[in-house]
Amino acid sequence: MPLVRIALMKGPHQGYGRKIGEIVYRAMVDTIKVPHQDHFQIISEHDADTLIYDPDYLGIRRSDGVVLIQITLNEGRSVDMKKALYATIAERLHDELAIRREDVLINLVEVKKENWSFGNGVAQYA
Amino acid sequence: MPLVRIALMKGPHQGYGRKIGEIVYRAMVDTIKVPHQDHFQIISEHDADTLIYDPDYLGIRRSDGVVLIQITLNEGRSVDMKKALYATIAERLHDELAIRREDVLINLVEVKKENWSFGNGVAQYA
Amino acid sequence: MPLVRIALMKGPHQGYGRKIGEIVYRAMVDTIKVPHQDHFQIISEHDADTLIYDPDYLGIRRSDGVVLIQITLNEGRSVDMKKALYATIAERLHDELAIRREDVLINLVEVKKENWSFGNGVAQYA
Repeated sequence: MPLVRIALMKGPHQGYGRKIGEIVYRAMVDTIKVPHQDHFQIISEHDADTLIYDPDYLGIRRSDGVVLIQITLNEGRSVDMKKALYATIAERLHDELAIRREDVLINLVEVKKENWSFGNGVAQYA
Repeated sequence: MPLVRIALMKGPHQGYGRKIGEIVYRAMVDTIKVPHQDHFQIISEHDADTLIYDPDYLGIRRSDGVVLIQITLNEGRSVDMKKALYATIAERLHDELAIRREDVLINLVEVKKENWSFGNGVAQYA
Repeated sequence: MPLVRIALMKGPHQGYGRKIGEIVYRAMVDTIKVPHQDHFQIISEHDADTLIYDPDYLGIRRSDGVVLIQITLNEGRSVDMKKALYATIAERLHDELAIRREDVLINLVEVKKENWSFGNGVAQYA
């Protein structure tokens, strides 16, 4: 049910955004009970004119390795589950892809369960 | 009032996303009382590294013809209206553009009516 | 805390979208109490096949200079604050970049304060 949008700077490695997305997907399965195979993502690559970030808002030092992750998902996760999701995404992106933890930004947009159709014109969760 | 984002694979037909968008617009007018001319859309074209979908989540067989449609709109539509919207979009995309019904994914994001300005710096619906 | 997405037609001026974004950022600081340095934006450039707008919905005459601004931000701003934001963005885009006021479209998506991580895997506002 989550629809994930990932924005990052254009880099030399083709498929890099996809690798980030796989880690985000697995973190959602492991921390907020997203079903297996529920993996739908849109990735965009940018340059410095189209991906804008502040280099130290809240005292966090960001770099051009910044990754903006916006996840639309069903409402109802607890604050603790959301915190576990953020921590797991940042930790695994660091451990598996050497992305700086400071460069991982995440935003959740919550919707009702009847707000999805996964194919065939049917509201599968309603 | 809806803002529609459509993501699809890059294909040989220029303007194909625009045709999809016109069908989505007419389906919204016919099923959920979107006003005539309220037609604003952002389309993005992708390759397999930037548009990620699961090929059979919920037992629905999807292909590279997948179309992800995210609609931001005013809150308040009933579940039945949403179901009619999904069914109509999938049916018409199939009938008019030969898109597989399994390949049509839709997500709604609902907002308050004062969350829009359609020009001139005015909140026309507030 | 706001994440701003700006869509506009591809033009001859590199960095034009970024300039628009800076004005949107400053308007948010001045009208809806967005903190200084809270500046995160994703800009996309389009042609007539991928940015669709109605040329006179609600009697407002729009042109290819249209700018679609979607802002995800914390819930809780009053209607008056939102109106001030819309008016200020449209006025300054006109005054500073000669953008037609009719071409400025804005949409707000509101989320809870625990729905953000600005780095390090932490929910800084929760």
